[in-house]
Amino acid sequence: MSETADPANDPDQNPLSDSQRRAAVIDLLGVLAYGELIAFERMASDASMAPGIAEEAALGHMAVAEFGHFVALRDHLTSLGADPAEAMSPFIEPLDAFHDSTTPADWLEGLVKAYVGDGFAADFYREVAEFIDDESTRKLILAALADTGHAQFVVEQVRAAVAADASVAGRLALWARRLVGEALVQAQRVAVDRDALAALIVGSGDLVKVGELLARLTQRHTERMESLGLRA
Amino acid sequence: MSETADPANDPDQNPLSDSQRRAAVIDLLGVLAYGELIAFERMASDASMAPGIAEEAALGHMAVAEFGHFVALRDHLTSLGADPAEAMSPFIEPLDAFHDSTTPADWLEGLVKAYVGDGFAADFYREVAEFIDDESTRKLILAALADTGHAQFVVEQVRAAVAADASVAGRLALWARRLVGEALVQAQRVAVDRDALAALIVGSGDLVKVGELLARLTQRHTERMESLGLRA
Repeated sequence: MSETADPANDPDQNPLSDSQRRAAVIDLLGVLAYGELIAFERMASDASMAPGIAEEAALGHMAVAEFGHFVALRDHLTSLGADPAEAMSPFIEPLDAFHDSTTPADWLEGLVKAYVGDGFAADFYREVAEFIDDESTRKLILAALADTGHAQFVVEQVRAAVAADASVAGRLALWARRLVGEALVQAQRVAVDRDALAALIVGSGDLVKVGELLARLTQRHTERMESLGLRA
Repeated sequence: MSETADPANDPDQNPLSDSQRRAAVIDLLGVLAYGELIAFERMASDASMAPGIAEEAALGHMAVAEFGHFVALRDHLTSLGADPAEAMSPFIEPLDAFHDSTTPADWLEGLVKAYVGDGFAADFYREVAEFIDDESTRKLILAALADTGHAQFVVEQVRAAVAADASVAGRLALWARRLVGEALVQAQRVAVDRDALAALIVGSGDLVKVGELLARLTQRHTERMESLGLRA
């Protein structure tokens, strides 16, 4: 067992082999890339529900930023020698299913989805990125997840709507809960199908750490809801 | 009638007053800007019908280019001292009506719409831009109408589909005819509502020239259809 001399190959420290680790990174880039592409399409489409041109343009800007992230992630997959379409293909069905089950009924639901849904996904991916050894990949993922600078716009719109009609708050709080619920259903599905990716996240075997990760995600989600003036 | 000394104020040469001319330019920028914004939204949404990730990304790129044109046109309206939302508002209803009546049923219809529809609109706006005195506005419009470099992608996709199944050609030719028909219905509606814009185009009173313009538009449309392997 001379291999255990290298900590990276110590099964206690790092239970993934190099090829498993590579598969997990390709998976992560693939799910992120397709996630950005479909978010771009849905967000651009949701922009048509805007109450005015300025709001329509603001959501359009957010959508275009997502497309830019998609391009960067796709090109990074290529630079790693992976086929981008192949890397994304396992995630088309679950991500499409998520979006099909969470089509916003109106402008405010679209905004909450853009803010809460993308925020939750970004937090999750950001946590996972920490498990990645390759620095250029980690940096690219963190850049793709950077706030597109339009979050403040969403916060203002939703708070104004809630101020104008208090009943809106309850409806949007329920909607946000549904978004998170549907996301978790699909995430579980992905975890079952993609061994390497799941192993990258929970493979440390340290359930306390996984618990802490979930606690952080929940905490940040609650903060986002509070910034919108909604109950988590 | 001392004003007729200036050819710009000679009613035979230039039937529009300065304020009418400005109104027409604002109208033109407004209809173009909203046209780009809605084309961005519809095209991004149509991308979800793509047969694969590469095709999906290609239509996404076309959509993002339209959004860039929208931003340039909107900012130019602001620089002219106009309110962009106000300038676009008269054209929301007719342009939305056009898109609602021409929602593509599948990927190929979406491609033909992106290529034939946008091509026809671009030719028309390009002709109208020639009537504009202000060079910076004229240049901006021509830049916004520049081919986004993805037309070749559409041509290849449609020709391959027609080669694989000859019956596709008839269906898509009919579809293209419907696109042009619906566009003309809405264009007529705009012409009736927007005096200054209509006057800018046909105000020369020279019906021969208007006839020539229509002949050029028809000719270019026929060429586009031929490049797709379809009958106009």
